[in-house]
Amino acid sequence: MDIAALRAAHPDHWMRAAAIRTLTLDAVAAANSGHSGMPMGMADVATVLYSRHLKFDAAAPDWPDRDRFILSAGHGSMLLYSLLHLTGYPEMTLDQLRNFRQWGAITAGHPEYGHAPGIETTTGPLGQGISNAVGFAMAEEILRARYGKALMDHHTYVIAGDGCLMEGVSHEAIGLAGRHQLGRLIVFWDNNNITIDGEVGLSDRTDQMTRFRAAGWHVQEIDGHDPDAIDAAITAAKASPLPSMIACKTHIALGHAAQDTSKGHGALTDQGQLQDAKAAYGWTTGPFDIPAEIKSWWEEVGSRGATTRAEWQARLDAQSERRQAEFARIFARDMPKPLASRIRALKKQIADEAPKVATRKSSEMVLEVVNPVLPETVGGSADLTGSNNTKTGDLGVFDTDNRKGRYIYWGIREHGMAAAMNGMALHGGVRPYGGTFMAFTDYARPAMRLAALMGIPTVFVMTHDSIGLGEDGPTHQPVEHLAISRATPNTMVFRPADTVETAEAWELALSSKSTPSVLSLTRQGLPTVRTEHKTRNLTAQGAYVLAEATGKRRAIILATGSEVSIALAARDLLQEEGIGTRVVSMPCWELFAEQDESYRRKVLPAGPVRVGVEAAVRTGWDRWLCGERGREAKSGFVGMEGFGASAPADVLYEKFGITAEAVADKVKSLL
Amino acid sequence: MDIAALRAAHPDHWMRAAAIRTLTLDAVAAANSGHSGMPMGMADVATVLYSRHLKFDAAAPDWPDRDRFILSAGHGSMLLYSLLHLTGYPEMTLDQLRNFRQWGAITAGHPEYGHAPGIETTTGPLGQGISNAVGFAMAEEILRARYGKALMDHHTYVIAGDGCLMEGVSHEAIGLAGRHQLGRLIVFWDNNNITIDGEVGLSDRTDQMTRFRAAGWHVQEIDGHDPDAIDAAITAAKASPLPSMIACKTHIALGHAAQDTSKGHGALTDQGQLQDAKAAYGWTTGPFDIPAEIKSWWEEVGSRGATTRAEWQARLDAQSERRQAEFARIFARDMPKPLASRIRALKKQIADEAPKVATRKSSEMVLEVVNPVLPETVGGSADLTGSNNTKTGDLGVFDTDNRKGRYIYWGIREHGMAAAMNGMALHGGVRPYGGTFMAFTDYARPAMRLAALMGIPTVFVMTHDSIGLGEDGPTHQPVEHLAISRATPNTMVFRPADTVETAEAWELALSSKSTPSVLSLTRQGLPTVRTEHKTRNLTAQGAYVLAEATGKRRAIILATGSEVSIALAARDLLQEEGIGTRVVSMPCWELFAEQDESYRRKVLPAGPVRVGVEAAVRTGWDRWLCGERGREAKSGFVGMEGFGASAPADVLYEKFGITAEAVADKVKSLL
Repeated sequence: MDIAALRAAHPDHWMRAAAIRTLTLDAVAAANSGHSGMPMGMADVATVLYSRHLKFDAAAPDWPDRDRFILSAGHGSMLLYSLLHLTGYPEMTLDQLRNFRQWGAITAGHPEYGHAPGIETTTGPLGQGISNAVGFAMAEEILRARYGKALMDHHTYVIAGDGCLMEGVSHEAIGLAGRHQLGRLIVFWDNNNITIDGEVGLSDRTDQMTRFRAAGWHVQEIDGHDPDAIDAAITAAKASPLPSMIACKTHIALGHAAQDTSKGHGALTDQGQLQDAKAAYGWTTGPFDIPAEIKSWWEEVGSRGATTRAEWQARLDAQSERRQAEFARIFARDMPKPLASRIRALKKQIADEAPKVATRKSSEMVLEVVNPVLPETVGGSADLTGSNNTKTGDLGVFDTDNRKGRYIYWGIREHGMAAAMNGMALHGGVRPYGGTFMAFTDYARPAMRLAALMGIPTVFVMTHDSIGLGEDGPTHQPVEHLAISRATPNTMVFRPADTVETAEAWELALSSKSTPSVLSLTRQGLPTVRTEHKTRNLTAQGAYVLAEATGKRRAIILATGSEVSIALAARDLLQEEGIGTRVVSMPCWELFAEQDESYRRKVLPAGPVRVGVEAAVRTGWDRWLCGERGREAKSGFVGMEGFGASAPADVLYEKFGITAEAVADKVKSLL
Repeated sequence: MDIAALRAAHPDHWMRAAAIRTLTLDAVAAANSGHSGMPMGMADVATVLYSRHLKFDAAAPDWPDRDRFILSAGHGSMLLYSLLHLTGYPEMTLDQLRNFRQWGAITAGHPEYGHAPGIETTTGPLGQGISNAVGFAMAEEILRARYGKALMDHHTYVIAGDGCLMEGVSHEAIGLAGRHQLGRLIVFWDNNNITIDGEVGLSDRTDQMTRFRAAGWHVQEIDGHDPDAIDAAITAAKASPLPSMIACKTHIALGHAAQDTSKGHGALTDQGQLQDAKAAYGWTTGPFDIPAEIKSWWEEVGSRGATTRAEWQARLDAQSERRQAEFARIFARDMPKPLASRIRALKKQIADEAPKVATRKSSEMVLEVVNPVLPETVGGSADLTGSNNTKTGDLGVFDTDNRKGRYIYWGIREHGMAAAMNGMALHGGVRPYGGTFMAFTDYARPAMRLAALMGIPTVFVMTHDSIGLGEDGPTHQPVEHLAISRATPNTMVFRPADTVETAEAWELALSSKSTPSVLSLTRQGLPTVRTEHKTRNLTAQGAYVLAEATGKRRAIILATGSEVSIALAARDLLQEEGIGTRVVSMPCWELFAEQDESYRRKVLPAGPVRVGVEAAVRTGWDRWLCGERGREAKSGFVGMEGFGASAPADVLYEKFGITAEAVADKVKSLL
């Protein structure tokens, strides 16, 4: 690559982009770790994007109508940190860059949502950013349809690398974007032909441009170091009604000795080579030292959006008070007043009627109540709408001719759905929930973990949550998936026992601002166990005494979901034999763990024998059976020890020994 | 669809294919559950494939050189069961079909590997079969290169539906197949335009044929109900040096009232409609009653491969004894004699030298010893070869011009890698292992679960197994992934503490015939803790006393992997204060759980305080801290309570409080 020619062709642009390159080199050298090559390769694209197209105001990073920039190739985090610093985001100080990848710094190895304004999503696990972006773009379409261009009129830009495009989830994402003609979505492919193991051709020879065209995208190919070509391509992309992919031919680690090699992908810390690269760039200042003229140009880039934002604010201020309040509320993730009373009314009705109903159906009953008062919910299912019971009458279907539709047919794309829902939640103004079979938690896992790590309230509606699924067999029967979600930090796993608990779980999931929820729901019908109406949300405490022992309390049965009614039946058997037995329903372990010790002790006093019952593996249960410090009780568990089988649900419960009799026997064996 | 015209055009073919359709209708009606439409739509393709192309002998379903048929659209299981019954696989009796989806039957809702010969892999979770198939085809290429066409010369056929092709993993699979020009892989796409939620267009408008071409495939489009077109397409596909995709335009639930609708995807049990469909087919016999002429034609199809198989057997018998023995051994998944002695020698050397080394590097040291004596190993990494340390010098790289290569550059495709490795293990004759970062267990999960469910010994090399990964930060730091794999039935999770335990873990993983293994390995260097050489594989018991208490035993510290050396240091601190402390290393919980109670009691006697230490969440630990029945010990845990952070590893251990001091303090707080 002839660096001198690049400099000569666009001298001003060159030095502005070089600021990104040199900050990257300096920060990686300071950390002695990181990824230098990608920011050095994509600095030109980023410079043109930020300075000529991106609608933003560094002083107001939460402006709802800003363009979103998503660094899907998250290992190139120094590209983003450099841009945020240069354009004047106050938090992104030079000190933060100097402390790249150090304890307490906001400049983590990969961009972490919440660490600093301007980081729109957490990336690093490849393919996530581009898939989040689909949700960002859908949210923009939905909100534009609802509030008009005056309030919602922006683009979502993504930089994706070869890794993002090799990951399977990218296929799901680009299929969705193509299907829904998300014309405001523009993806730059950093086509540098290098992965960690070597040239891309070692592992892949896909014709990416043809692939994107096959998915319904507008595709262009440019020299990723030519600012005018970049500019023209972005202009053309914005003009296209289709989502756009711009294949940017770039050189990884441009201008460094490691250029165009897999070594260039990693940490370039050799001081001699670093100085040589800076010399080639014509960069004469020391580490982290940006010439004033360049810095001020970038700061102007970062502040020039202030006018546009002020105009937008004026348009918002001109809206009706009611509309302004709603707009503010949905972006604040606040719940509307009527929610609580609607939920309470449903709980009362159910307690009175005591229907026998599958909790997936209970969930639909709740959604029928919720969706009309929450215009921000966006539901969907990964091609299991009728099974997940996620679609209510009033939602409408999101489509190219109905952008107001609030229901998404995600197709057979659990991972893409989960990642796009995260994008919606991150965009703000919508509250996404989506369904699949609980066993397919496995497919959605990478995105579910990121929802937890980012602290966003995505709601995963996981139905068919045990062997109760029946004939479809062990591939479709979760046994370890409750444990998987419970083991994940910052995740609320709700396994409601009936419609009342399902309503309480939904209320908590929707009220959460910073924690994703997993709703574990049955296929099979369950009796109502909460037949005594309580205004209070008992699920909010995570676990509570559902049925007290009659006589001396000798045993406590702990159960969740479909096994709560089994626990109650076991209690009946034991009480008949004079064994005082309490039943504790535990719809949400995480919330129970957050209660103060006195409440937890009250629900689970030391002494009585404890038996847990759940149609799943035991993993995690011992915490409640033994207590945090051990020794609280003799204990046992009735559940699954391996995978399920294909047969009718009632046969499976019998064959796998998850019955009232087995629970009662387990209690007696411990007494 | 004009059924009469179809019948008239190919009357003999029609009735043979109708046998599949009617068996499907009958079995689904008997079960009152299942998926009728797919087998009814693809019966013509299957009939032509089995009768004119598939190389198999129903009497010898394990013949290593048979063609493989993989039903990726596993919900259409009755297609496969019908074929196995009709062609005379002895186990697949009419009674089994009558008991479709019932307890104890081999005819599960989705095909389950191991239930019956002829089921090559477990499918149902969509996209898995087509991705397994890539591994099947790779294994065939590798073995053909090694043993010649005389012994290995077959094809892998797949039926995939729209769901398979929407799932992200299909993108990874077809990219791999295209890159490696797996010309023996032939995929039929059941292009019926229907998913559960409705027409495919609701969620997807991808041009699948262009997409496959972009990935380097040979693509044809045919009428999936025209036997001659099907035949010609298969012939052309076999002639192409590229992997082939045959887009088969079909009608789901052909000839039934529900044809071409999403209802047709599910269980068609209405008796009137069922009889109408049979009448349209010209089918006059009762349920499960196949006219003798049709059955005998199918049985001839099932037995005609016997000659080809006998010829193959003669060619095998003509090989050298050594070659025959090796061939038999690798397909029996037996280990060669030298393995044990090589492992022992390495253990002795390490015990003597006591190096400080990361266990990912230890793993490489083991593989350098293992790979030369195990010609069947096939290694690889999802673009982290230098980090996972999975490539040894002698393997060679699998490529279009080096089919003998035993190392695969999988690219950034964790899921595709895992699924293809499963396919290799299922094909037989190769032993796959592959690496990625442990946090990306999430991406590989659906395939890892299926390895466990199927009972195949795939080896997942998961490096960078904790916050010890350091600066890359929380996206790349597993905290819940040990719990995830441990919660999964039939999975051995090894977390070795040093090179000696790593060698033992590898020996166990390779010796396993029916259980996948997860090797949890560090990025950071660890001291050798097993400095006293033992010939015996101590890891085989899952947990063992690494250091005994001096004086009265008052505490037991349980630890795994990188925390074992921390436990030993904590023991030193405690012993200095006169607190007798035992350290138990627990490299494999699952194997420890399999030991008899007396051994488990010996290692973990009731009484002394127990503290677990692991740089991960507590989930699952309480089983060992409290005992199966609770109350065994006062206990505590030192580990992670949430996600990690970006900083150097030693800083993170300090900041998150996973130190010898913290462990010693925890013990003292419990005494």
